[in-house]
Amino acid sequence: MFRAKVLIKRRASILDPQGKAVEIGAQHLGLTNIKNTRIGKYIEFDVDTNDKTEAEKEVNDYCEKLLANPVMEDYEITLEEVKWANLNSE
Amino acid sequence: MFRAKVLIKRRASILDPQGKAVEIGAQHLGLTNIKNTRIGKYIEFDVDTNDKTEAEKEVNDYCEKLLANPVMEDYEITLEEVKWANLNSE
Repeated sequence: MFRAKVLIKRRASILDPQGKAVEIGAQHLGLTNIKNTRIGKYIEFDVDTNDKTEAEKEVNDYCEKLLANPVMEDYEITLEEVKWANLNSE
Repeated sequence: MFRAKVLIKRRASILDPQGKAVEIGAQHLGLTNIKNTRIGKYIEFDVDTNDKTEAEKEVNDYCEKLLANPVMEDYEITLEEVKWANLNSE
């Protein structure tokens, strides 16, 4: 089994209105040194196979087709093998 | 100046309906090995001060008061010093 961690960020050239809005809140709270806030996503999941090639393919498809918007966002994948796990525990 | 990176995750005991919904999409696309998807946030920002103690305090306040929900979420902060930077470049 593999454990995947995916970071998704907007491209630097694309504005981030959500980050801007939160940052205005920070200014109001007196946190005046906070600049350039950008909000992305962090996604964790398991890939229930022992074939690394298959796992990589599923992770890439998942990112391209569902998790990220390839037009506006870049993503970084970390895939690590897990030797044993109980998939039903949360 | 410091550069902060913050990962925000829901506590393991708290359900993640957004992750569940995306995962159902994955099953429909034939990505049947994907399990336990959990969606969190990844936030990057600059802290425009050279005083590390002050930077840490601002980052903690920002996380506690605006970025994370301390009741449902845990967060991890990485703070690294940046020796020079142009704050106006995006």
